[in-house]
Amino acid sequence: MQSTSIKALLAAEPLSQEVVINGWVKTFRSNRFIALNDGSSLANIQCVVDFEQFDEETLKQINTGAALKINGTLVESQGRGQKVEIQVKDIFVHGGSNPETYPIQPKKHSMEFLREQAHLRVRTNTFSAVMRVRSALSFSIHHYFYQNGFYYFHAPIITGSDAEGAGEMFRVTTLDDKDPPLTEDGKVDYREDFFGKETNLTVSGQLEAEAYAMGLGKVYTFGPTFRAENSNTSRHLAEFWMIEPEMAFYDLADNMDLAEDFIKSVITYILEHCREDLDFLEKRLLDEEKTKPQAERSEMALIEKLRFVVDNGFKRVTYTEAIDILRNSKPNKKKKFKFPIDEWGADLQSEHERFLVEKHFKCPVILFDYPAKIKAFYMRLNEDGKTVRAMDILFPGIGEIVGGSQREERLDVLKSKMEALGIPEEELWWYLDLRKFGTAVHSGFGLGFERLVLFATGMGNIRDVIPFPRTPQNAEF
Amino acid sequence: MQSTSIKALLAAEPLSQEVVINGWVKTFRSNRFIALNDGSSLANIQCVVDFEQFDEETLKQINTGAALKINGTLVESQGRGQKVEIQVKDIFVHGGSNPETYPIQPKKHSMEFLREQAHLRVRTNTFSAVMRVRSALSFSIHHYFYQNGFYYFHAPIITGSDAEGAGEMFRVTTLDDKDPPLTEDGKVDYREDFFGKETNLTVSGQLEAEAYAMGLGKVYTFGPTFRAENSNTSRHLAEFWMIEPEMAFYDLADNMDLAEDFIKSVITYILEHCREDLDFLEKRLLDEEKTKPQAERSEMALIEKLRFVVDNGFKRVTYTEAIDILRNSKPNKKKKFKFPIDEWGADLQSEHERFLVEKHFKCPVILFDYPAKIKAFYMRLNEDGKTVRAMDILFPGIGEIVGGSQREERLDVLKSKMEALGIPEEELWWYLDLRKFGTAVHSGFGLGFERLVLFATGMGNIRDVIPFPRTPQNAEF
Repeated sequence: MQSTSIKALLAAEPLSQEVVINGWVKTFRSNRFIALNDGSSLANIQCVVDFEQFDEETLKQINTGAALKINGTLVESQGRGQKVEIQVKDIFVHGGSNPETYPIQPKKHSMEFLREQAHLRVRTNTFSAVMRVRSALSFSIHHYFYQNGFYYFHAPIITGSDAEGAGEMFRVTTLDDKDPPLTEDGKVDYREDFFGKETNLTVSGQLEAEAYAMGLGKVYTFGPTFRAENSNTSRHLAEFWMIEPEMAFYDLADNMDLAEDFIKSVITYILEHCREDLDFLEKRLLDEEKTKPQAERSEMALIEKLRFVVDNGFKRVTYTEAIDILRNSKPNKKKKFKFPIDEWGADLQSEHERFLVEKHFKCPVILFDYPAKIKAFYMRLNEDGKTVRAMDILFPGIGEIVGGSQREERLDVLKSKMEALGIPEEELWWYLDLRKFGTAVHSGFGLGFERLVLFATGMGNIRDVIPFPRTPQNAEF
Repeated sequence: MQSTSIKALLAAEPLSQEVVINGWVKTFRSNRFIALNDGSSLANIQCVVDFEQFDEETLKQINTGAALKINGTLVESQGRGQKVEIQVKDIFVHGGSNPETYPIQPKKHSMEFLREQAHLRVRTNTFSAVMRVRSALSFSIHHYFYQNGFYYFHAPIITGSDAEGAGEMFRVTTLDDKDPPLTEDGKVDYREDFFGKETNLTVSGQLEAEAYAMGLGKVYTFGPTFRAENSNTSRHLAEFWMIEPEMAFYDLADNMDLAEDFIKSVITYILEHCREDLDFLEKRLLDEEKTKPQAERSEMALIEKLRFVVDNGFKRVTYTEAIDILRNSKPNKKKKFKFPIDEWGADLQSEHERFLVEKHFKCPVILFDYPAKIKAFYMRLNEDGKTVRAMDILFPGIGEIVGGSQREERLDVLKSKMEALGIPEEELWWYLDLRKFGTAVHSGFGLGFERLVLFATGMGNIRDVIPFPRTPQNAEF
């Protein structure tokens, strides 16, 4: 007989039908009630055992974490809080779970402990909920772009170019680790490496995505990107997934419209499809925040916060306006900022972004038209000659979640920017080609996927929203 | 006024409505007919110019590859082969394209030449069609798993484990390239590397996916994987995308059922959604094959071949049956095989797989129950003690497209396998944990995405179905 998912059974009518399920024991109470879970939903199904019908040996193996196959009858539940339950006829123990050694006991574990058990933590309610929401967000992202005429573009992961300058890179090599071949002038001879040149892990697929947008019109990447930065914070990973749409014929305003609509759509999607998991995560967050001083607690509960993003326009503010607000702000005047804001041109730090988003506007903010000097070479220079058509979207509690821009489409301007920054034209000959042949206004942005998951789940540390986090000194599993 | 995609206009009723479109010039005939394309579909829209209304300077810029914005009226087409066309009112030239230097002229280019222009080749009909099909296949894969209760699992790309043994690996490092720190006994001191240990690019997300399947039930990966193998063939890439579903409580038969249903579903999807592109690719293939001797041509045209896969059951054959067939085959008796088949236990080579699929069965074949000795340590040992529950799916013209197995769920058997192969338990402590706590029958497979795209598009070289291929000596762009 085919087995059924617990999610399907929990939604079924109890007609005394015969069912087969597989799953793992969450709890076993009174030698009678097995709460069984198979990952298909947060909720367990209650399986009622008449213990006199089963031998001691079988009952002894029904411990938290054990894998069972159960045959039984789906009936109306006698207990509270569930519509249906299973009257157990047969139990097959796939595999036991020694309660003395199984790390995931039905009690509260610290996040730190669970990170060390990253191969098992998905068996907890919190992590299974987070990972289901992560999966639903992924699907909603593909779905959104597909519906809107975008093509999924797989950017290369190993790259021979280091011109983007988005951050420190990991080297990819097959050369001898101790005695690499050397050139005559004593440098490592990368001509002998696998790709015949020095290669690194990508920090962004944007430049390649631009090449594809200039043929397919609208494309997006959704793939892993890397930063070899020694950042041990709750917001940084060395390996993370990024979404980078790139659109021909879009200017900065179109780009902002798209980013806002996109974020609202994917959050709406999980509000509609992951309600059980989000309710659980909201409760988890409330419990966690009870341990914090009042001032540090969120003003909104998780689902309220998600609804707020969906229901309200993102505030669009130029960098220049933001600097005025910050310069005249209380924390600036009282010298509470670590980096005081004196003049136009200063790079905004996390403390400034948080002030704008969390204290001043109290909503998602899109900052745009940044000083050219603090932004990347490929951003479209405004007519003022000193700002570029860049935009960052800042979220409460998360900080920057999106960074994007209209791209510089004018060959001469791009070339002089590259020259000023010492980027050799040979490095990016193909990128310049895009401006030589059929160049056009185009734009795009990047969204760090784990930051979105962090926001959507209310988790506190980015290491807890990716299955196996990679951070300095940590590549276990 | 908002611009419209050409795909939408081609499907619209010509009601003399005002429209704005953006796109690139494919051809400009008789100073009058612009064929414009924006990547939204293979088909161009014809824009009719009354050249007397435009100055010479504008007309001179309308060359193949130039980017234009056109305002005009959508009317019924006077010409053949198209329902609608645009009577042009205004032309804005986003960017010209010098016909003397633009590499993508409206003529036949060799695939080799276009690989050197990988940033521009997506502007050709062939590559835009391939990449649209690739994108649709990607979406259909996510869609299939989502509909069937799977969760998308992001396997780590950088891995500290090298136990899987699926192939040669790329090292990932931030150590000094020439003078890495050394330990006292003169080896490279990886404790000082970014992750505090030696790390590589993943060759498979399977082992980690197993950990997630044992909590979430059914998961799949769809991400990049890597092989540092010096294979310069039309079927190998150093960087490629792989899909790896992993299912708790699935045995080998369930696994084969899933793989077959999955492949048929995604191919059905593109037959329903990419017909225009597939028709074009079918014609392309026919043209290409005309240059080949009769014996080397495909027996079926592209779409017929795709339908054949959808409409017919995959033939399921044990390894033992396959060996019997091969041993008694004409090419074996006539010593035409490079590797003659003498006895049970021989590893099958590409020539044998091709004989089985293309000559003997003439349909997709699932080979299963392979000798344990030629398969990986994690595959479930059969009761005969000498075969494992492995399966490979072989496709005509492509060879192996899927490799999978039921996994060894018994701790003692897995341990003794690892010991026999010299895989230290410390390396895979967490993988063994999955067998200690709630182990159960489970299975999964891996499908090389580019091989699927190759099959679906009828292209001849795997470098031509991924945007920027990575192969030995080549990581350009």
